[in-house]
Amino acid sequence: MNPAIKRLSPVPSDLDIAQAAQPLPISEVAAQLGLTDDDLIHYGKHKAKVHLDTLPKLADRPLGKYIDVTAITPTPLGEGKTTTTVGLVQGLGQLGHKAIACIRQPSMGPTFGIKGGAAGGGYSQVIPMEDFNLHLTGDIHAITAAHNLVAAAIDARWYHEDRMNDEKLAKVGLSRLNIDPYRLTWNRVMDVNDRALRRVMVGLGPEDDGRPRQTGFDITVASEIMAILALVNGNDFKSALHDLRQRAGRTVIGTNKDGQPITLEDLKVAGAVTVLMRDALHPNLLQTLEGQPAFVHAGPFANIAHGNSSILADQLALRLGDYVVTESGFGADIGMEKFFDIKCRYSGLIPDCVVLVATIRALKMHGGGPRVIPGRPLDKAYTDENVGLLEAGLANLEAHIRNAKRFGVPVVVAVNKFHTDTPAEIAAVERAALAAGAEAAVMTDHWASGGDGAIQLSEAVVAACEKPSNFQFLYPLDLPIKAKIETIAKEIYSAGEVIYDPQAEKQIKSYEANGFGNLPICMAKTHLSISDDPLLKNAPSGYTLTVREVRASVGAGFIYPLLGEMRTMPGLGTKPAYMNVDVDEDGRIMGLF
Amino acid sequence: MNPAIKRLSPVPSDLDIAQAAQPLPISEVAAQLGLTDDDLIHYGKHKAKVHLDTLPKLADRPLGKYIDVTAITPTPLGEGKTTTTVGLVQGLGQLGHKAIACIRQPSMGPTFGIKGGAAGGGYSQVIPMEDFNLHLTGDIHAITAAHNLVAAAIDARWYHEDRMNDEKLAKVGLSRLNIDPYRLTWNRVMDVNDRALRRVMVGLGPEDDGRPRQTGFDITVASEIMAILALVNGNDFKSALHDLRQRAGRTVIGTNKDGQPITLEDLKVAGAVTVLMRDALHPNLLQTLEGQPAFVHAGPFANIAHGNSSILADQLALRLGDYVVTESGFGADIGMEKFFDIKCRYSGLIPDCVVLVATIRALKMHGGGPRVIPGRPLDKAYTDENVGLLEAGLANLEAHIRNAKRFGVPVVVAVNKFHTDTPAEIAAVERAALAAGAEAAVMTDHWASGGDGAIQLSEAVVAACEKPSNFQFLYPLDLPIKAKIETIAKEIYSAGEVIYDPQAEKQIKSYEANGFGNLPICMAKTHLSISDDPLLKNAPSGYTLTVREVRASVGAGFIYPLLGEMRTMPGLGTKPAYMNVDVDEDGRIMGLF
Repeated sequence: MNPAIKRLSPVPSDLDIAQAAQPLPISEVAAQLGLTDDDLIHYGKHKAKVHLDTLPKLADRPLGKYIDVTAITPTPLGEGKTTTTVGLVQGLGQLGHKAIACIRQPSMGPTFGIKGGAAGGGYSQVIPMEDFNLHLTGDIHAITAAHNLVAAAIDARWYHEDRMNDEKLAKVGLSRLNIDPYRLTWNRVMDVNDRALRRVMVGLGPEDDGRPRQTGFDITVASEIMAILALVNGNDFKSALHDLRQRAGRTVIGTNKDGQPITLEDLKVAGAVTVLMRDALHPNLLQTLEGQPAFVHAGPFANIAHGNSSILADQLALRLGDYVVTESGFGADIGMEKFFDIKCRYSGLIPDCVVLVATIRALKMHGGGPRVIPGRPLDKAYTDENVGLLEAGLANLEAHIRNAKRFGVPVVVAVNKFHTDTPAEIAAVERAALAAGAEAAVMTDHWASGGDGAIQLSEAVVAACEKPSNFQFLYPLDLPIKAKIETIAKEIYSAGEVIYDPQAEKQIKSYEANGFGNLPICMAKTHLSISDDPLLKNAPSGYTLTVREVRASVGAGFIYPLLGEMRTMPGLGTKPAYMNVDVDEDGRIMGLF
Repeated sequence: MNPAIKRLSPVPSDLDIAQAAQPLPISEVAAQLGLTDDDLIHYGKHKAKVHLDTLPKLADRPLGKYIDVTAITPTPLGEGKTTTTVGLVQGLGQLGHKAIACIRQPSMGPTFGIKGGAAGGGYSQVIPMEDFNLHLTGDIHAITAAHNLVAAAIDARWYHEDRMNDEKLAKVGLSRLNIDPYRLTWNRVMDVNDRALRRVMVGLGPEDDGRPRQTGFDITVASEIMAILALVNGNDFKSALHDLRQRAGRTVIGTNKDGQPITLEDLKVAGAVTVLMRDALHPNLLQTLEGQPAFVHAGPFANIAHGNSSILADQLALRLGDYVVTESGFGADIGMEKFFDIKCRYSGLIPDCVVLVATIRALKMHGGGPRVIPGRPLDKAYTDENVGLLEAGLANLEAHIRNAKRFGVPVVVAVNKFHTDTPAEIAAVERAALAAGAEAAVMTDHWASGGDGAIQLSEAVVAACEKPSNFQFLYPLDLPIKAKIETIAKEIYSAGEVIYDPQAEKQIKSYEANGFGNLPICMAKTHLSISDDPLLKNAPSGYTLTVREVRASVGAGFIYPLLGEMRTMPGLGTKPAYMNVDVDEDGRIMGLF
């Protein structure tokens, strides 16, 4: 453990804790793993990329245990998955294990939009928090650049084809792509919360300012290039780069006027995208507050994409550590299912244990407690003991435990402690979890006590990892798209039936006709309910699930059915977080989190 | 000199030369300057930022000689300022001097748009060329992020003020800014050539997607935040950060409905901008092909901004080296004048020598040679000896020499050698240059021969730096805006009179009323003529110069009169450079330059 950390009570603010910590030189953190400076690409003293050519040197090492941290259906406040991920790594470290965290890089949009860091919290954080939450090593910026180069290439090609006849095009060595401007699915992106960019008209102005069309901006982490970065696989830099190049080439930006897909290869921009993303492939190494290694690499949106950090970071971590703790976005119905059926499918890696984070607060909400609204004080129902309300919501926990076990992986329930939780409430959760088939259910207090607070959880996870994992995917890829959707909907979401809007029917047919039918499914669903209706709490079943639209990320490698309106560009509120951010007299960052 | 460089003849491609070079570890380059790893923020093995807190440690060191590389009025092909800057540093190195280059970071837009690297060329390049031309250390990306956060803040504030009454605003602690959407001057930015973004409508869609208005995107290097980065001054990190914070706060984004300026301070976003730009303040260190230090820091547009690299890099370099060679954008009428009257004014640094780059090709164009068009073969007039045509164009050279001398700084003319130049032609240039008052005029062959080719130039520069520099600004700041414009127009551009469009008249009045009248002037003028008409070659005089519009970059600290239409977002041609960019079988970058 980093000896510089002195824990205080009451727990100070996240920023105060992070700034009080003196991070270890990243070389020292890397040296714990047997890495030398030759394996690192330094970005200052406290962050580095680990070069992917470290992988072949480690090929003989056995894989560590692979642990996915997920959660029950959360309140809008979140139930502490990242904190638990970091706390568990710190706890495993206290037990003397070589443990590594693998988490997602956050978008800067919410950092400056809604107060709330993504680096964990309390005494379970990744540091330096400023680097973590701001530019890091520029991976997200590289995606912005690559994505928007493609967008510029699309509009430029359409413009030039519009103003030139076939003969003129042939003279410069181009053949007509015949882009259909009404069938373009490639937006532009920006790493900022900017509601005014959701729907825009581009190409206004005189003749040589392009051609007018309506389009929009997504937040950068919603870019397919981010999903690709997270899913690239390889056993060294060259093979990973090759996989990236192939995926970039396959990526579809829309169709021509005959309905045939147009790819980045057709636009001759896949090579440039690969070159722009080349450095970003190497996973970023930071550290926990207690000095353990933490990879922070890729952060695809958890609704329209798969919401998991990168395969490459996990690959490296599994060769370097005894325990690798990785987090999947949203609740277990979404993040965990995608972790198994998409990420593990593309990586070939087999998980050993699922940690399911629950809070008394969220379970009471599922039991019928009053609405939880960010920024407003919690209702007394959540802060006073109420075992009855809690027990009414345990069905949500039980459903997620059953879902995890369906994949053949042992489950440990981590009850993330709040000071208002009572022994009777915690005991009720433990009883229900064990009855539903969890290996263990333990209270964890890593927020206030760092690794010391997660000792019991760590011991339970170590024990669970010794159990046999009979991991299996939920569905084979060669099922028709609808059958795959229905398997997830019925088995994981407990839906009674699935219906499709006419647009979705048409899109499914078109994707199957174009040869994309054998991709895995990445459901774009609310995380606030196991169902497709955010208001249905607890464990709904037998309801009708509606697929409104179906889209494809062919380069990343999944089909994503939309079960509701998915917002891909957040907005800024009346008092955004940036208003508090500044530098103090000594040049230190204030008010960031 | 880096011993790994073996020069070949004929000279290979820029990329082949750069990739054949094995760069020195950047720590070694820094060690030449007496810097240790504690002074560096490493970004991999071959680039680093030099921490600004190195400055106070060097406070007792004498300043090196300060040399500005500029050029005669160029052809559209450019006449080799960057190459000469790098070549001169390499030549000074061959003479045993501690020399440092200070150059601008290029935009990625042109890198993927028009083939042509910005890292110099031949055997006078900055390496690693891939890092130089792509993300470098992320400074431009930080500007994109900061600039667009401000844009989001503007539209969000307008939207919330539109949907909330004063009472509701007061409840969340806000007072009405009353933004006039028709008087906003803050565009969004993107580091890409994207003509379709020149004019856009944002805020379309339903009620909570903002409010519709027309706006546009500029390329990131045209952002005022880039101009600010280049002009920040300080004697340590804290004071530079403080200067950045003040400039950010003063930056004006438009007016309210009463015509009063609205600043980033009013929007409460200046602190966040400072935090996003904090790391970018430290200058980036790379190296020349021959292993000398090269700072690459900031790259403001040379038309609407001042087109010079950062003051902070020059400050550091002048304490670390004996000779600091810095480049100013476009021809001497623009880049050099702004170097003196804007950059040197804000830095307090005094230049010792001007190197004026000329080519036989450009002089023949000024003498009446046929039009030079990028991508087409040069006319025979340029490749065959033609002393008469050349002599007819020498007036352009003479005008620039006179202009430089007006500032009291010695001038050395560097004739950038092409293999078609003849001894008689070179002699004619030398004669004219000396007659016009240059200290020396020498042929330089650094492109083909690296530092060895620039020995004579280096000797001439060393000698000129020993001459007394009687540096003085062209105008005092307390003149009225029009008097300052007219001084530049008449003294430097040889205009006969200056007329103002009504819009410009109105803007000048408004800036003076708002207290911005005492800022220096940054003329936004074509670089293809000394006049405001790109077709007037050679040394036009007595013409009427028209000021169409006047804008202000209050944060950066200058007023910029527009003398013509200035394009701030380039477009992509039919066969953009990105089409050739890819990775090869071994993962190396191909076709980038």
